[in-house]
Amino acid sequence: MLKETAAWLKPVQQTLDDYLATVNNPHLQAAMAYSVDAGGKRLRPLLLLAVVTTFGGDGEQALPAAAALELLHTYSLIHDDLPAMDNDDLRRGKKTSHKQFDEATAILAGDALQSAAFELLAQTKVAPATLVGLVQTFARAVGPNGMVGGQVMDMDAQGHQIDLQTLLQLQAEKTGALLTAAADMGAQLAHVSASDARGVHVFAAAFGRAFQIQDDINDVTETAAQLGKTPNKDVAEGKATYPSLLGLAATRQVLAEEVVKAQAAASDLSVPAPQLKALLDYFETEKQ
Amino acid sequence: MLKETAAWLKPVQQTLDDYLATVNNPHLQAAMAYSVDAGGKRLRPLLLLAVVTTFGGDGEQALPAAAALELLHTYSLIHDDLPAMDNDDLRRGKKTSHKQFDEATAILAGDALQSAAFELLAQTKVAPATLVGLVQTFARAVGPNGMVGGQVMDMDAQGHQIDLQTLLQLQAEKTGALLTAAADMGAQLAHVSASDARGVHVFAAAFGRAFQIQDDINDVTETAAQLGKTPNKDVAEGKATYPSLLGLAATRQVLAEEVVKAQAAASDLSVPAPQLKALLDYFETEKQ
Repeated sequence: MLKETAAWLKPVQQTLDDYLATVNNPHLQAAMAYSVDAGGKRLRPLLLLAVVTTFGGDGEQALPAAAALELLHTYSLIHDDLPAMDNDDLRRGKKTSHKQFDEATAILAGDALQSAAFELLAQTKVAPATLVGLVQTFARAVGPNGMVGGQVMDMDAQGHQIDLQTLLQLQAEKTGALLTAAADMGAQLAHVSASDARGVHVFAAAFGRAFQIQDDINDVTETAAQLGKTPNKDVAEGKATYPSLLGLAATRQVLAEEVVKAQAAASDLSVPAPQLKALLDYFETEKQ
Repeated sequence: MLKETAAWLKPVQQTLDDYLATVNNPHLQAAMAYSVDAGGKRLRPLLLLAVVTTFGGDGEQALPAAAALELLHTYSLIHDDLPAMDNDDLRRGKKTSHKQFDEATAILAGDALQSAAFELLAQTKVAPATLVGLVQTFARAVGPNGMVGGQVMDMDAQGHQIDLQTLLQLQAEKTGALLTAAADMGAQLAHVSASDARGVHVFAAAFGRAFQIQDDINDVTETAAQLGKTPNKDVAEGKATYPSLLGLAATRQVLAEEVVKAQAAASDLSVPAPQLKALLDYFETEKQ
């Protein structure tokens, strides 16, 4: 990650802190803050801001929209970890919300974080027509034909044999939709051309696939301490993953291909995009 | 309820049906539709539309915003009924979502309905500046300092002795916020004067308190068949209610006072408001 991108971590955190400080109920505020501050990489806000600034847009102005992505992402993690869902005790090396608090608190903190994401997004100080576009893009990405739809597919797939095509669609919705929304919203905020908008979308879609593949690889190759959660959980639960469908070597090959696709999309933009390319350093592939 | 108001039931249902038809995942679609179509009175959409048409606004144009209120309300009921929350098996005489499906499905259907509410709201075909105002009002009403905050207060109050002041604040957030949002959004859509906007807000706040009081009364005076859910549940769980704090006779008195307040607010508007006044027929009080 380039210094210009990393420099946004602090303003993003400040925006999150400022929002959380407005929550009146101390119990709810504590539960929301616990998960928001559980050590996430802020990848979605940073992606949005990298797109905005790549095209000369106003990063400061984009901060509420960027932080909204993190609030939404955090809600999805809390609900994903619930006993009725993945039933995880650890997340990023810390107790999950329902372990730290209780199940009712975890459900409500997640619910509140989803509302909060829309509330914060709607505070972005841009032209109303731009803001309406942001809300539409965001709502579609996280809704029934986006992230939640992917989550339902994931739940229905457990214990079943699914093919690579189904896994791709599942992950495109569950993980990909919010990442492409981050890029699309960045493009809208920077008022880029239709061609550049397509380019950053292709970049983010490949980035999203690579991200999920890397996650699958880490699940089978890293220890609990490295992962911050229970390793080999996907395998133990019979969850289809890239390694389970393709083997580890072929999975690494697909990862490398997705990274190349993302690099190519970044290179084809109408402006140099070193910040976007540097985001790809996250992935453990042989560099081109 | 006047014929003009009841006539909106069908278009509201059509708007809900049209939205649900766009959900691609059949499992998720079935779970969302099951709860949306579980026999709700559509009070929040009808309140919004009554305000819009009272001031000569365009009801047809307001339908997505009206239906969004019902999607949001339905999500709150599904999550409220979960085992970790109120643990209800019946709602409006039908099995609750986690009983009809399973807990994971109920959590995700609720999550999806919240996203869907924002998605549908953002499709309202009004000027962008008006739409931004609607999203801001809606998000604030359902978020941590609104509906979800009230839900957390409610959870924290269980098994504790709370006073009337706390009960009022709890219910203002848990039930009142979405009802006042419905009225406020109607006022925004009809571009009413500041004075009329205050008037419909006061009407809806009194309506919301009356609604909750009527609900508390029904809980102790009606059978399971009338209620469509387990009666006397509040008492059994040691939940503070108006009757438990004031007794039934004084509670009926407070209900009558709130209805009078709502009637007065409706009478003070700059236009005749027969539709709003007729909504008060819902309450079982001696008419003034």
